[in-house]
Amino acid sequence: MRISHEELVQLITREVARQLETSDAAKYPSPEDVARDGFACNVSARHGHLSVDDVETLFGKGQRLTPFKWLYQKGQFASEQIVQIVGPRSSIRNVRILGPERGKSQFEISQTEARALGVVPPILQSVNHGTGAPITIVGPKGSIHIEALIRAKRHVHLHPDEASLMGVKDGDEVAVEIPAGDQGLVFYNVLIRTHPDFHAEMHIDTDEGNAAGVTDGAKAFFLSPRSNICRICK
Amino acid sequence: MRISHEELVQLITREVARQLETSDAAKYPSPEDVARDGFACNVSARHGHLSVDDVETLFGKGQRLTPFKWLYQKGQFASEQIVQIVGPRSSIRNVRILGPERGKSQFEISQTEARALGVVPPILQSVNHGTGAPITIVGPKGSIHIEALIRAKRHVHLHPDEASLMGVKDGDEVAVEIPAGDQGLVFYNVLIRTHPDFHAEMHIDTDEGNAAGVTDGAKAFFLSPRSNICRICK
Repeated sequence: MRISHEELVQLITREVARQLETSDAAKYPSPEDVARDGFACNVSARHGHLSVDDVETLFGKGQRLTPFKWLYQKGQFASEQIVQIVGPRSSIRNVRILGPERGKSQFEISQTEARALGVVPPILQSVNHGTGAPITIVGPKGSIHIEALIRAKRHVHLHPDEASLMGVKDGDEVAVEIPAGDQGLVFYNVLIRTHPDFHAEMHIDTDEGNAAGVTDGAKAFFLSPRSNICRICK
Repeated sequence: MRISHEELVQLITREVARQLETSDAAKYPSPEDVARDGFACNVSARHGHLSVDDVETLFGKGQRLTPFKWLYQKGQFASEQIVQIVGPRSSIRNVRILGPERGKSQFEISQTEARALGVVPPILQSVNHGTGAPITIVGPKGSIHIEALIRAKRHVHLHPDEASLMGVKDGDEVAVEIPAGDQGLVFYNVLIRTHPDFHAEMHIDTDEGNAAGVTDGAKAFFLSPRSNICRICK
């Protein structure tokens, strides 16, 4: 049996689409699963977001961020691009840029790193507001000095369906339990952020991850009157 | 009026004793105050404890630790002696030794520092067991290689009267709330250690302190059915 070129292209296209769909379903649990079994808790190590202009200043005219590894949130990636961030007391090499490019540049570090650098970044939402403490960023082709260094406020990404099922909404601040192992804890004041592109995932910084003993596959749970499970008072 | 040399010595001795007693009472709240208002939560930055033999190897024959600053726990001090600790990936200068000397040497760091050094210390009680991961300690007069690097398990020092008033005992592991500010949290599995020389004080490492937003004067509370205050479920 022989098939035409067009038929072959169609077959391949359909198979790729099917596999993409399968892998998406395999990658992301259903809202019901999330509500029952908890959501992923991942540590955001120090990183930066860059505007297109700043990418060109740091890496050269016409350059763009290129994917090194895809992240849990759809379309987000750790890029191949890395920079050095320089504070008054010391500097940190190998700070990875996350892609794609954003409207404004912003860098996120832990308090341990802030003390080493000699800077006092505010705790802010890790969204695209482009404000923060002053910091110098050095790339292979140039450097920038921006007032956009922050510590990211701990937060949970949720799809609106997941949020509604678990009784929380965008902008809420809730208590989240990370019960795993000997270093279990409850974080108060965890910000809820919802968007149709989001899938349930908590983001904390390295200090918080170390305090909670978070390793790959760690799960987190809402701990509030609504959730009806308090492991402290039950 | 003239007083004799002996009378003067007596007067001074009595006045010093009175002031010491006053300052002790001022420094340490009563068990009732602690039970009602919470206990001090202090961050233990990286530090070491040394045996007399190791003090002599690192600082010279006949040398002893000398007080630089007295700590909250009676008789304990940050010494004037500092060393460098050296791991396979990097080293950390200016690691302070706490005094007085102990039976065995031991060093305590955070997980952030462990990763930078390239070592994997176990989480153990910060008492005098003298076991842990291998590490090299370098002083001005010599160096030692010991298997005694740990991450200290978070814990609360209590006088037996304080423990009994709050319904906990030596060896218990309890939930402790640090409610201060935007970074409030609850640590599970906090070890209780009691001794007649202790005064109520929680010790956490720098990662944990940063995660909880702990600053000078931070207070901690037991959060358990016994304490009858759960800020999550109430």
